[in-house]
Order: sequence, then structure tokens, then C-alpha cells
Amino acid sequence: MLKDIYENKQVLITGVAGFIGSHLAEYLISHGASIIGIDNFSLGSEKNIKNILNHSKFTFLNKDITSEYENILVRLKNFKIDEVWHLAANSDISNGVFNSDIDLKNTFLTTHYTLKLSSELNIKNFIFASSSAIYGDKGNTEIYEDMGPLLPISNYGAMKLASEAIISSAIESYLYKAWIFRFPNVVGSRITHGIIYDFIKKIQTDHNSLNVLGDGNQCKQYLHVSELIDAMLFIRLNSLNSLNYYNIGVSETSTYVHEIVEMIIKSLNLRPNIIYSGGQKGWIGDIPKFKFSTAKLNNLGWKSKMSSNEAVQKAIHEVINEMGLKC
Amino acid sequence: MLKDIYENKQVLITGVAGFIGSHLAEYLISHGASIIGIDNFSLGSEKNIKNILNHSKFTFLNKDITSEYENILVRLKNFKIDEVWHLAANSDISNGVFNSDIDLKNTFLTTHYTLKLSSELNIKNFIFASSSAIYGDKGNTEIYEDMGPLLPISNYGAMKLASEAIISSAIESYLYKAWIFRFPNVVGSRITHGIIYDFIKKIQTDHNSLNVLGDGNQCKQYLHVSELIDAMLFIRLNSLNSLNYYNIGVSETSTYVHEIVEMIIKSLNLRPNIIYSGGQKGWIGDIPKFKFSTAKLNNLGWKSKMSSNEAVQKAIHEVINEMGLKC
Repeated sequence: MLKDIYENKQVLITGVAGFIGSHLAEYLISHGASIIGIDNFSLGSEKNIKNILNHSKFTFLNKDITSEYENILVRLKNFKIDEVWHLAANSDISNGVFNSDIDLKNTFLTTHYTLKLSSELNIKNFIFASSSAIYGDKGNTEIYEDMGPLLPISNYGAMKLASEAIISSAIESYLYKAWIFRFPNVVGSRITHGIIYDFIKKIQTDHNSLNVLGDGNQCKQYLHVSELIDAMLFIRLNSLNSLNYYNIGVSETSTYVHEIVEMIIKSLNLRPNIIYSGGQKGWIGDIPKFKFSTAKLNNLGWKSKMSSNEAVQKAIHEVINEMGLKC
Repeated sequence: MLKDIYENKQVLITGVAGFIGSHLAEYLISHGASIIGIDNFSLGSEKNIKNILNHSKFTFLNKDITSEYENILVRLKNFKIDEVWHLAANSDISNGVFNSDIDLKNTFLTTHYTLKLSSELNIKNFIFASSSAIYGDKGNTEIYEDMGPLLPISNYGAMKLASEAIISSAIESYLYKAWIFRFPNVVGSRITHGIIYDFIKKIQTDHNSLNVLGDGNQCKQYLHVSELIDAMLFIRLNSLNSLNYYNIGVSETSTYVHEIVEMIIKSLNLRPNIIYSGGQKGWIGDIPKFKFSTAKLNNLGWKSKMSSNEAVQKAIHEVINEMGLKC
């Protein structure tokens, strides 16, 4: 079915050299699509796209859409693009907390310009990687798609919400259909930030102690990137309203920070002294606990196969392998 | 009470020469405040602030905060500002529908830079003029503050929602308190756009016929600017959470487009041929009907005195007088 849909389709991916973009590009190429990928290598890297860089169905523009929009527009006029997957964004939430310019440019203006491209190039289908961060801190309340109010507590969350809002408005004028995916924490190979990556990095430099922000009881859902790709394509093909928005997550299970720490040190066979800084939150803009409803997605017919802990364990092994360490 | 609160306070107003900003500045000066006003005269005008331009308690910067931020920052370092009222925005919703750059710059980046100013100048209280447009088209569903989903259908609504989102995020880091007011249609003297202004302008150029977009049954709430100012200050002084967000509107009453047309031609004593274009919507991004709940504001203790029709009638007389026409 996917093969039928994407065979000979031209798909534009922004952030193609990033963690998720590169996995998506490989997947779509393997299902017959031609990919035009854009990346400014701010968080993405050439290493991530090395498997496809020379593929006949892959065209790569190493450009920044917020500063080289006109140039990109001219280059893309030769293509008949069927749909755009807009994944380019700042993905380091804590980094943007004290400097709102980072998420303005990388998380919001990337969306603004990708929409302009869609309008100019007459690309009718727009697929967007949003985030659970748009909801803000809902404590123990279950987070479902139609809830309000939306009060983000990070500039990243705010700029993802801003992006959703202009996509919603574009549906009213030139876009035909849009799909908005609100991601949980996604883990797996090629990850560039986040708790698993950070802890493994830290423990490499000091085998004897590991400092952990918060009290270790922050509890979140982790989804493996392979399942995320599967869920996104499932929604893309099965939800066909003009505006489709879904939480994507792991049904019912979640993982504590202290469990992640334990899995990492067990995988690396190390016994560092773990020092928790204490307090509920890891950092400003962090959401210590959240219950992410996936009922809408489950009702559409998709459920994750891995539990949150299984996804974390798989990702730990992948990251350790990528860093050339031994499990 | 207001006199006590604002006596000798330094208040920054963005969009001070606009429709609402100029009324607010006059009001706060009359209650003892010193005003520093910024306006780029894109929609505002010197005429609007002629009553206060030479007042000892008024300092005016004819500058654009999105392009002259650094210059404004330097100028404002000499002031100890107690609070900022951020009113600068594109206010012509339909104008921004086909050019997303307009609301990006004037409705959103103005907020981004005003927040940066607040952070740099250590201004702890931030008051923001938002809009009912953040909710999108809710049809006959009553619109209350905590509802979701928020799916704006205009770039104006999207960029107001984006502004709310970064204010929400700023509360998590450097802001002390914020007040967000979601405006209905506001009418009165100095208005620069909108149905009353547009129809009176049109009918001036052609006494014999008046073209009206839609079928005349679009039905909205209209609040007079004097009541808006009253409501905003009431909320500012009586709602003291870290983040306070309220719909401001006229309780229970609303006005049809055809009623406005009838009031205008009666006031001008003209008998033009009225031609309705038909259809429910006036223009893309228009929301033909909405029920704006003011229960939260009523519970706080404020209710409008004028009905929607009374506000429209008063505004028609004011606009006619301002244009030098005869009622």
C-alpha cells in the first residue's frame, strides 16, 4: 500500500539530515519516493544521510530555509513536489529557554518559510512534526488533542504551537490537507540530544560519577524512532480530513529518569556514583510528568508494539554502538 | 483606586498611536501615570495622539520595534518601567490572509521584541491585547477561555495565538505576571478599519449603492472602546495570578451585519441600494458567527453597560463626526 502511494512521488523533507528526517528519508526512498531534502546542518549532519546521499532518488540542498529562502525557491521550481514533510526545528528545548531567538528562527520561521514554499510551489499536502510541548504542564491530567488551554512553558513549545496555528490558517486559504503529529520523546540511533544521549556522553568522560538533574522521578513516554515513522505514515494514509492532528505515543507505559540511568549503567557495565540534584523538574521548561493520550490514534487503528522501557533499552544499545562503545 | 495604582507609575505602550493604544494612553495619563509610547505609524497616526503629544507625562518614540529594537532598547534604559501594554499589531485581518509576512512582522514579531525589551529592562508585568481570532471558527459552540482545540483560520489569529504562547513561556522564566485579553470586535472613535469604518467610507464615495460582502447575517459582538479600556483595567487590578487570560465582550447581545448597514444609512439619512454578495462568510479568515462567553469576566465582577447594538450606534456617530459628515 505504501509502495503504491509513494512510488514516483516527489517528497520534500526539511531537516532531512536530522535524527528523524534522515530515518524518514531512507524509509520513503525504500518505498519508491524521490526525496528532495533540505538541511542547514545546525543539528543534522552529513553522517546521518550518508546511506542515501548518492542515491539517484535523493536530491540534497545544504541550505538554511530562513536565510536562503529565495535561493531554495528558485532551485525547487524545477520539481513537481507532491508533499512536504516539515521536520526542521530546534530540538534542544532547554537551549532555547533563555534565548527566544533560537526557537523563533529554527522552530517557527522554518515553518513560516516552508509554508511560503508550499504556497509558491503549489504543494498541497503539508505534514508537520509538532510536539507534546504545545500543551504546557498539565500535571496529572491526561493530554488529549482537543484539550485547552494551551499554555506552553518553553519557547520550543510556544513556537511549535505557533507553527500549528499558521498551518491551521493556511488550510483556510491555499493548503489542501495538513497532518500535524504531536511527538512524545523520541529515541533511537542518530539522536543528538536528550537524556539518553546526554547521560551516555557524560558517563564517557567520567566513569565514576553521574550528575542527574531533578530527583529521578520525572516520568515520560519514550517512543522508538522506527515506530514513530510507522505511526506517521499510518496517520498520513488513514486520516484524510483537511486538518489532521494526532498525539503519537506509547500506549499506557512510561519510563522514570532513574530507570533510564539504571539501564544505561547496566548496559555499559559501569558503577558510577549517581548524584540527583533533587527537585521535581530537570530544568526550566521541562515537564516532569505527563500523561499523553493516544486514544485518538488507537481508534484510528495504530498502537505501538514496544513499551516505553523497551524503546529506551533499544535506543541505549543503538547510541552506545554508534559511539563505538561496548555494551 | 486606579489613581492610587497608576500615580507616578511608568507605563510603556506599544501601538500607542493606534485606535485602542491612544485611548488607553489618555486614560492612564488622566489617572496619574507617565506613558512611554512607541508607534511606527503604520496603522496608528499622529492625529490620534494629538491630545497628549505635548503632555509632560508623555514620551513618544516614533519607531518600529521589529526593525529598530536596539535603538529603542538604548533609549528606554533611562526609564524605570513598571509595566508594558503591548497593543502593536496588524489590525486588518483580511489584509494578512494572502500575505503571511504582514502578521508575522506586525502581529507576532512585535510581541517577540516587546518581550525581549521586558526581559532586558526587567519589566515584570506584561499586558497583551489578544483576540477572539485565536479560537478559529467554532460555529455555534460557545467560546470560553479554556476550550480547545485552537485552530485559527487567519494569519492574524495564528500570530495572536503565537504571541500568547511565547508570553506563557516567558512566565516560566523571567516575567512576573501577564494579562492576556481576548478582544471581540471593538468599535469607537479613531477606528482605522472594520465594517463600520469601511461602510461609511464606501457610502461617502457612492451615495446610491453599497456592496456588502456575505449575506448580511454574519453576527458578532461589538464592544465600545471605552468599555474595553474599563474592562482591561478591571482585570489588570482584580485578577492577580501569574498568567491571567480573559475574553472581553458584551454579555449576551450581538449585532447582524444588516443591522449595522441599516444603522449607518439611517444615521447618514441616505437610501442607497444595498447589494449583498451572498454566502455566509464576508472574506477568507472571517468568522461569520460566534458566541463569545464572558462568564469568566462576569464572575470576576465586570459586565458591559452598553449592548452590542448600542456600542455600534455610538461608534457610528463618532466615526461620522470624525469624518466631518453630518448625522
